[in-house]
Amino acid sequence: MAVKENLRPGGRSARVQASVHKAVRELLAEMNRAEVTIPLIAARAGVTPSTIYRRWGDLQELLADVAVERLRPDMQPVDAGSGKADLEAWAEQYAEEMASGPGREMIRDVLAAQAGVNACKCAEYTRQQIVVIAERAKRRGESFPDVDSVMDQVVAPIMYRILFADVPDTAHVRDLVSRVVRASD
Amino acid sequence: MAVKENLRPGGRSARVQASVHKAVRELLAEMNRAEVTIPLIAARAGVTPSTIYRRWGDLQELLADVAVERLRPDMQPVDAGSGKADLEAWAEQYAEEMASGPGREMIRDVLAAQAGVNACKCAEYTRQQIVVIAERAKRRGESFPDVDSVMDQVVAPIMYRILFADVPDTAHVRDLVSRVVRASD
Repeated sequence: MAVKENLRPGGRSARVQASVHKAVRELLAEMNRAEVTIPLIAARAGVTPSTIYRRWGDLQELLADVAVERLRPDMQPVDAGSGKADLEAWAEQYAEEMASGPGREMIRDVLAAQAGVNACKCAEYTRQQIVVIAERAKRRGESFPDVDSVMDQVVAPIMYRILFADVPDTAHVRDLVSRVVRASD
Repeated sequence: MAVKENLRPGGRSARVQASVHKAVRELLAEMNRAEVTIPLIAARAGVTPSTIYRRWGDLQELLADVAVERLRPDMQPVDAGSGKADLEAWAEQYAEEMASGPGREMIRDVLAAQAGVNACKCAEYTRQQIVVIAERAKRRGESFPDVDSVMDQVVAPIMYRILFADVPDTAHVRDLVSRVVRASD
C-alpha cells in the first residue's frame, strides 16, 4: 500500500503519521522487533489499529516506511576537496552505516515490504547524494563519472556485499571508487 | 539458527528436512505466504511443531532455508563459445530469473532471515557459476576478469537494481559484462 506523500505539515494526517512513526521508533528501541505489533503501536500512538491498517496495510509496510525515513540522509556529502576524495569519504561512511546493526535492520525492513516504493526511495536518497558530489566536481572543472556508473560500480557492490557476503573493508571501497573515477578520466 | 549441513542422505534427519521442505513448497504454492504457519507446515510434513522450532528456530529461518535450496543453480552455465559470450548469456538469465515474481520472493525470504548463513550460501552459488565460466575461458586461453570483479561489477549491479530500483534491461546487462571483460584485456 502506498503511503500518501506530501502531507500538509501540521494537518491531521501528518500528525497521525508523526505520532505512529514515533511510537514505532520507541517500541523498536524498547523491545525485540518480533514483539512489536500493530495493536501495541496503536496504543502507544493514541490511534486505533484500524487507522494503521487503513493507512499502511500491514506491519511490514509500516516498518518499511519508518525505516526509509531513518535512511534519509541528514547531511550533505562532506567536501573533501575533489570529486574522488568526496566520493571516497562518502562511500566509506555509507558502507560503515549500512553494515552497522541498525543499518542492516533498516535495509531488511525496507526490503521485506511487498511494495517496492520504499526500496526505490532508499536508492533515490543515495542517488541524490552522488548527484551532489558529481555537481560539485563539475563546478570545480573536474571530470567525474556519470551517476549511474557510480550507482552500479560503487553503491551496488557495497550493498551486495553487506546483504550477501562480508562487509567490504575500507581498502575495497577505495578500490571501487578509484576504478570508477579512473574510467571517467 | 544454523541448519546442519551434510546430513547423511536417507538418515532420519535428512528425511525430516526433505519432508518439511516439501510441505513448505506445497503450502506456498497453495496459499498466500502470510497464511503459512509452523503448525500448518508441521501437520503437512507429519512432524511436530517443536521439531521445526528446534531445527530452524522460526518460520523466517525455515523459509530462507527452503528459498536458498530453490536458488541453487540446477545447471552449468551454457557454453556460448567465449568467456564474454558465456558471461553475457549467464548474466541475462540471472537477471531474468531473479527479477521474476518467484525470484524476488526467494530473495526476500533469504534476506529476511536474521542469520546471514543463507544469504551467503546464495552468493556462493552465484560465485561458483562465475568460477565455472572463468575456468572455461582460461582453458580456451582467453583473458577473463577475476571472479571478484565479476561479482562486484556484474552480479552486484543486477541485484541492486532488482532490489532497489528497476529491473536492469538486456542492454544494460550487456554493458556491465562488456565493461568488466574489457577491463581485463
